[in-house]
Amino acid sequence: MVAYDLVIKGGSIATTEGVSTMDVAIYRGQIAALGWDLPPGRRTIDATGKLVLPGGVDAHCHIEQLSGGGLMNADTFETATRSAAFGGTTTVISFAAQHRRDSLLDVVRNYSDLAASGAVTDYAFHLWISDPTPQTLEHDLPQLIESGHRSIKIFMTYDRVRLLDEQVLDVMMVAREHGALVCAHAENHGMIKWMADRLVSRGYVEPKFHGVSHPRVCEIEAFERLIRFSQLLDQPIMLFHVSTAEGAAVIRRARGEGIKVFAETCPQYLFLTAQDLDRPGLEGAKWMCSPPPRSTADQNALWQALELGDLQVVSSDHAPYRFDESGKLSAGPNPDFKQIANGLPGLETRLPLLFDAMVSQGRSSLEKFVEITATAPAKIYGLHPRKGAIAVGADADIAIWNPDREVTFTDDGLHDNVGYNPFAGRTLRGWPEIVLRRGDVIVADGTLQAAPGSGQLQMRGRAASMRPAGILSPEFDPASNFGAQLL
Amino acid sequence: MVAYDLVIKGGSIATTEGVSTMDVAIYRGQIAALGWDLPPGRRTIDATGKLVLPGGVDAHCHIEQLSGGGLMNADTFETATRSAAFGGTTTVISFAAQHRRDSLLDVVRNYSDLAASGAVTDYAFHLWISDPTPQTLEHDLPQLIESGHRSIKIFMTYDRVRLLDEQVLDVMMVAREHGALVCAHAENHGMIKWMADRLVSRGYVEPKFHGVSHPRVCEIEAFERLIRFSQLLDQPIMLFHVSTAEGAAVIRRARGEGIKVFAETCPQYLFLTAQDLDRPGLEGAKWMCSPPPRSTADQNALWQALELGDLQVVSSDHAPYRFDESGKLSAGPNPDFKQIANGLPGLETRLPLLFDAMVSQGRSSLEKFVEITATAPAKIYGLHPRKGAIAVGADADIAIWNPDREVTFTDDGLHDNVGYNPFAGRTLRGWPEIVLRRGDVIVADGTLQAAPGSGQLQMRGRAASMRPAGILSPEFDPASNFGAQLL
Amino acid sequence: MVAYDLVIKGGSIATTEGVSTMDVAIYRGQIAALGWDLPPGRRTIDATGKLVLPGGVDAHCHIEQLSGGGLMNADTFETATRSAAFGGTTTVISFAAQHRRDSLLDVVRNYSDLAASGAVTDYAFHLWISDPTPQTLEHDLPQLIESGHRSIKIFMTYDRVRLLDEQVLDVMMVAREHGALVCAHAENHGMIKWMADRLVSRGYVEPKFHGVSHPRVCEIEAFERLIRFSQLLDQPIMLFHVSTAEGAAVIRRARGEGIKVFAETCPQYLFLTAQDLDRPGLEGAKWMCSPPPRSTADQNALWQALELGDLQVVSSDHAPYRFDESGKLSAGPNPDFKQIANGLPGLETRLPLLFDAMVSQGRSSLEKFVEITATAPAKIYGLHPRKGAIAVGADADIAIWNPDREVTFTDDGLHDNVGYNPFAGRTLRGWPEIVLRRGDVIVADGTLQAAPGSGQLQMRGRAASMRPAGILSPEFDPASNFGAQLL
Amino acid sequence: MVAYDLVIKGGSIATTEGVSTMDVAIYRGQIAALGWDLPPGRRTIDATGKLVLPGGVDAHCHIEQLSGGGLMNADTFETATRSAAFGGTTTVISFAAQHRRDSLLDVVRNYSDLAASGAVTDYAFHLWISDPTPQTLEHDLPQLIESGHRSIKIFMTYDRVRLLDEQVLDVMMVAREHGALVCAHAENHGMIKWMADRLVSRGYVEPKFHGVSHPRVCEIEAFERLIRFSQLLDQPIMLFHVSTAEGAAVIRRARGEGIKVFAETCPQYLFLTAQDLDRPGLEGAKWMCSPPPRSTADQNALWQALELGDLQVVSSDHAPYRFDESGKLSAGPNPDFKQIANGLPGLETRLPLLFDAMVSQGRSSLEKFVEITATAPAKIYGLHPRKGAIAVGADADIAIWNPDREVTFTDDGLHDNVGYNPFAGRTLRGWPEIVLRRGDVIVADGTLQAAPGSGQLQMRGRAASMRPAGILSPEFDPASNFGAQLL
Repeated sequence: MVAYDLVIKGGSIATTEGVSTMDVAIYRGQIAALGWDLPPGRRTIDATGKLVLPGGVDAHCHIEQLSGGGLMNADTFETATRSAAFGGTTTVISFAAQHRRDSLLDVVRNYSDLAASGAVTDYAFHLWISDPTPQTLEHDLPQLIESGHRSIKIFMTYDRVRLLDEQVLDVMMVAREHGALVCAHAENHGMIKWMADRLVSRGYVEPKFHGVSHPRVCEIEAFERLIRFSQLLDQPIMLFHVSTAEGAAVIRRARGEGIKVFAETCPQYLFLTAQDLDRPGLEGAKWMCSPPPRSTADQNALWQALELGDLQVVSSDHAPYRFDESGKLSAGPNPDFKQIANGLPGLETRLPLLFDAMVSQGRSSLEKFVEITATAPAKIYGLHPRKGAIAVGADADIAIWNPDREVTFTDDGLHDNVGYNPFAGRTLRGWPEIVLRRGDVIVADGTLQAAPGSGQLQMRGRAASMRPAGILSPEFDPASNFGAQLL
Repeated sequence: MVAYDLVIKGGSIATTEGVSTMDVAIYRGQIAALGWDLPPGRRTIDATGKLVLPGGVDAHCHIEQLSGGGLMNADTFETATRSAAFGGTTTVISFAAQHRRDSLLDVVRNYSDLAASGAVTDYAFHLWISDPTPQTLEHDLPQLIESGHRSIKIFMTYDRVRLLDEQVLDVMMVAREHGALVCAHAENHGMIKWMADRLVSRGYVEPKFHGVSHPRVCEIEAFERLIRFSQLLDQPIMLFHVSTAEGAAVIRRARGEGIKVFAETCPQYLFLTAQDLDRPGLEGAKWMCSPPPRSTADQNALWQALELGDLQVVSSDHAPYRFDESGKLSAGPNPDFKQIANGLPGLETRLPLLFDAMVSQGRSSLEKFVEITATAPAKIYGLHPRKGAIAVGADADIAIWNPDREVTFTDDGLHDNVGYNPFAGRTLRGWPEIVLRRGDVIVADGTLQAAPGSGQLQMRGRAASMRPAGILSPEFDPASNFGAQLL
Repeated sequence: MVAYDLVIKGGSIATTEGVSTMDVAIYRGQIAALGWDLPPGRRTIDATGKLVLPGGVDAHCHIEQLSGGGLMNADTFETATRSAAFGGTTTVISFAAQHRRDSLLDVVRNYSDLAASGAVTDYAFHLWISDPTPQTLEHDLPQLIESGHRSIKIFMTYDRVRLLDEQVLDVMMVAREHGALVCAHAENHGMIKWMADRLVSRGYVEPKFHGVSHPRVCEIEAFERLIRFSQLLDQPIMLFHVSTAEGAAVIRRARGEGIKVFAETCPQYLFLTAQDLDRPGLEGAKWMCSPPPRSTADQNALWQALELGDLQVVSSDHAPYRFDESGKLSAGPNPDFKQIANGLPGLETRLPLLFDAMVSQGRSSLEKFVEITATAPAKIYGLHPRKGAIAVGADADIAIWNPDREVTFTDDGLHDNVGYNPFAGRTLRGWPEIVLRRGDVIVADGTLQAAPGSGQLQMRGRAASMRPAGILSPEFDPASNFGAQLL
Repeated sequence: MVAYDLVIKGGSIATTEGVSTMDVAIYRGQIAALGWDLPPGRRTIDATGKLVLPGGVDAHCHIEQLSGGGLMNADTFETATRSAAFGGTTTVISFAAQHRRDSLLDVVRNYSDLAASGAVTDYAFHLWISDPTPQTLEHDLPQLIESGHRSIKIFMTYDRVRLLDEQVLDVMMVAREHGALVCAHAENHGMIKWMADRLVSRGYVEPKFHGVSHPRVCEIEAFERLIRFSQLLDQPIMLFHVSTAEGAAVIRRARGEGIKVFAETCPQYLFLTAQDLDRPGLEGAKWMCSPPPRSTADQNALWQALELGDLQVVSSDHAPYRFDESGKLSAGPNPDFKQIANGLPGLETRLPLLFDAMVSQGRSSLEKFVEITATAPAKIYGLHPRKGAIAVGADADIAIWNPDREVTFTDDGLHDNVGYNPFAGRTLRGWPEIVLRRGDVIVADGTLQAAPGSGQLQMRGRAASMRPAGILSPEFDPASNFGAQLL
């Protein structure tokens, strides 16, 4: 019998299955036992009256990376993961971003170095592919996937990073053969370009027209298209940041047909609307993100889709740009909306916003909160069972929440480097007071207690989510059986 | 720190979340701890190389009860729960069956007495209502629900037990007000009657015509109807024994619209087809059940619906009648199919059939097996967290499976009182070798180690599943707001 | 070359295909030629600047008949068809209503006598079946169908006339074998009964609660059920008076699956809403009909369904009861809504309402107006090519419309015997000024110019609409091929 | 009263509304009267026992035009329209094909010259846009639309002619503003390219792999995409050559949502399958067309979609290439399937194939045959009421069919310049024996009786089909109301 390093006593432990009071014993960074009245460890935390939840897994964050538009994020790994930790998140997945003419291997190597010196939470990378050369497709990408980078990010829009349809198929085929999940920013490029040109040329340049330039069908169309690619190749996909009711409905229909589609939404689509961009002057730029927030009817549809499991994950899509000339206003004092970087900070606010809505206000359940913020992303992205759950054998990534603590968001209350909080002014109930990462307390008493670089890169195995559904053989010979399944 | 009564060492524990190797410590019938290298208890079971799964919850079994046709089941609580235990099931829900002119309170009292003296597994009752008198609706049913009998069974067909549509609404309204789930045998009575009369009058009397007399639309129609009642009253329902692809599709559509529909299927619809009834003479009667088995295309659709979560539960619908004059042949030597009792034994075969298909043959996962056979029924019927999971605080209802043991079913290998096995001849891999109920070993070494009557009645709280979805106020005033939501 | 009896010169002739200026020559009651500058007939009508349209076919009217509730209609054949003629309608289909214990043959004989002495328009009968005895099913109904009464009316609600599901199937099977269309009042009986009892017992008795007592799902459910019966037997059906958006959607889905469903709506569902019943005292009773009017969203959905062809026909459902003790108030001075007869007058207002909306206001086209008011009902009910179109060989049933004439409805402006106009106060543009029936002018200069009894009974052949779709053989042997199509 | 030039006596005249026996009188090229026993004209044709149908309108033919691949069609206007006339077709719509760098005005001028000197039937042009320059979009295209060229053709695939998404929107916007229908070859370019490259690089080069290279989802995806563009701009579209069941289902769903989508299929998708390409050597090339023929299940779905009105038109997609080095084999003796021109001849066979299936074999009705081959295309493309119907005022474009004549197709029996008949070997019942164009007999006794150049260009008005559905104002200000309908 082991001597535990730490025992968290008397908290209510929540998993996707249920909530129950018990102790959690930690040994060498992992959860070694769960039970009543466990023997004491070398250290004890009294969690009586508190909720003991898995640390959040935020599967979609932009950190220390050049955007599609060539602008550097406001956050480094240090500031971003610090912010994440204060918000109860212990693992982030950010983007090793290949821009055109970049070597993918170099990109990953350099990005790993940045993370290794800065991160205070654990982390993994999505491989962002914008130049699917033969070298990339035949050598670098297979090697990286096999080494444990098991997810890929593609863009269907943004001039400098988007892939053509045939390139999307190329990347999906490599993913299929080597076992990776393909995640997509799916919006129709032509529609956005056409709308934006039309708007700007007519003088509709304020931030609120960013929303108009991304009509809801541009999301719906791109979902439908990528779903058809998934169906053709029998390759799982993840649709990022669903913003519309129709988008969610398209996903539900596809899943019902056996197409292996996963989907995410973000707090901005659950808590904001297009009206939030309609502010005097350039102020609305703070709420600009792509896709844009929609309507309360969409919010309701997205909540329902989460309950139904049509959407499985809520990530932050943390995309940090300061509201100054280094970020949102980098194009000068009078930009049109096309010249303003898209993105909101969200690493720190994601969990409190969801906790307040789902648990404190009773919109859903604590089990569902745990599922969509930690367990489901861990499973879908191959981090489970190491991450995402309070379970024997899992890493002791734990957030101890005070369900009664009320916090009011202000623009200067976050720990990132963005300088504003798009949810400022809201008062939430429920807050993560103590956060552990692999058994070490990294946040307590409102202070960070972890050194930059103490986070670790998480290599991943081939998760169930990354398997083709089995309709075709892994080799995918389109001529097999005279293409019977295709004709 | 407690001294454990029993520790199961070294097995692979499976929950709906994952599978991991750890010890399970039991104290006073409950799971007190899960962990690595737990301190020894007074007794130890070595489960190395074995799977430690929650005991099955079989939420649909006919035991020691008069059928709709007035025939007594072949199984008593003793024989039925013995059979269940040998098959790895530790909790059953059977039917306290009110026939017309019965007092519901008397029915439950008498049925409780039978169970108390016979059952070796734990058990709960569905309240089967076939006479919704004012006494039943206004007094007996509310009292029984509030006391912990939180599920109701209604029939839409069978002359002697079926309810009219307005009676269904009456019962659903009581369920709504007091917090019970309404389960239904949903087939269109008129269609079945019309088809059967037509068939028999033309001389189509063999067992195989039982299937023809229940055309697939008779299920689809009844699902659609009950779903509309659920929508009207905002009251959750459980559709029993889904047999058709279209039935599953109707359920998926309703769930997508926010209607709170749960659904079950049974091994007979996953492993048998209409062809199984086509045997010489009366032999086919052994495979007669309602609804009838359909086609392999339906089987595939039902498997997919389980994966998608459109169906949540696989129960046995154990309905035991011997293939002799006491049961299937009670109407004499030359019955037509209308005179033959419907039903198959299934308590003992349910889990091995599913384990073999889902786990050994790889059709699904061990987590999903646990979910549909134990955790989901426990949650839906209000038995969770006491039943249905390996979790700290749960009852120690555990089946230790040897995943490699092969068993070939024979007609005389089961422990019930039915005398045949509808799946005889099949060889399965995976078998529950040791079964514990509240910490006591009740099956081991192929023998029963529990006394009749040692099972306990499980009273239940108001589960999430029993809550109306919230569209209407609990009072349901149809005139509120001038019926705005109804018009 | 014939010498024409009458030539209508210079009008704009409209068919479902198009609108064009030409002359119409009539010979012995039929249209003998269409063309430019036709030779003169013995008589000429100058229609320059006017629209020459087929006389309306109103396929759903209650005339001189006992209601389901046992109340006699306010209109005789004389008053009803007079009213129809003034509204531009030249053929009506009313109900030969078999109440329980009536001989169907007697019913038709007696009803024919009434019509023969009163009608000024042509007419046909739906055979209303409420007592499907062996005599009815095996003898009377087949004989009447074969003689040319090719449509049947059944009720799924109303205590005294409704059929049980198995009786519906019996009637549909006779229709299938002999070639008739089965029309249905499809609402769920149990829901209405349950809601109404609940409302009345709580004191919600005003006319507006009639609407609440028919929740929209009661229509949706009944449509779904009858569609399944149609699917089972492969027998065409006509769903009367669709009132909800969901009802129309259910029909669209069924038609897409190849189920042969036709559907009708009525002006009350296109021009009224539930709010129309909300009047002081009993006044709202004037607008009570079943199903009740719904919402403007439903109106829009019904208009769209007509455009799409999901609904094919707009009939009046003329159900005339005076707002006095002979009709609406027959139960005394303080009735609850259950005691008030359902129904509105509509024979005379149907065409002007639709013309104004579709043509004058531009909601649709003149071609579509002709289609849904004349050609489509004539085709579906087997009256085509004799009725329903301006075509060579057709009966010269013609309404000459002044598209510019404005008329304001008042309570005393109609020619029926009802005493009020539910659309009083509306001003419409477009009015039928001259009406011909088989070449005879029956309305002109605001006066009736036809004698009671000059209308003729229209016997009908087996129309395409009355054919099963062909999935099954006409014999429908449910055991054929071991019921392969059913299982 | 006019003296008729010609009277066709005693035939059965068919329209979309019905079939009836009457005379047809023609005056100055138009139908002047329909009727019984009309006065004789200067000339008489006895049509007793024959069917008198509107001449076919073939709305999709490639004539004397460079293909997307740069290959000239085998047929000139003279040979193509001669072939059309022998097959009962009197109006064709072919393509004024702008290739990149072409002036659209020049293209139309030159193409008009070719037609004016060759055509024996009447004709109109689709404006094929592959270079939407500012000159094209802002000047040439508006001018041509306003002058009466009211339909546009765009390609979503084929390297040299396809438009990008934003260009599609540009063209649709011009169509919206000036009143034209946008027709599309809708297949996903990337999928086809990716599949074809993969197949060819692996040595799958035979003609049958052409089919595999166009997987069914490539059509489904492109339909979904174009439908979303239509929804965004509220601009009607016509989807050409639907080949799959899912494609038809996507269209049905869109129409149900009020999106103004029209759709066409072609005989090759109703009568051929992918197996027809599987022939020894290069022989299969004769059956290569894009999209490729699919399966019998798809055929059945397309027939049903035509009956339901989800598809409205059957055109030939006549795309003539000889099976020699001038056409199919222009790339040399060993081409891979990418090097072989796509297309089949079909102008002459379209009507007989459909007549035989729909009328002689009873799959549908004569009215429906007339609708999908003449009336519907005339209406949708703005040729009605001049073309497409037997009606007073219409051009006397008439085909007199002998419904009993049997013809067996052979490779050398057609009157085009292609040299083979893809339907050779089939025996059909029903044949157009006499064909009139604007009152002149152009085919009789198996000989052509019209001079090249006697056909006329048909300028068209803004048809109902070309109107936006009305959701947005004609100006389409995306910023109106802050883009409320888009967000």
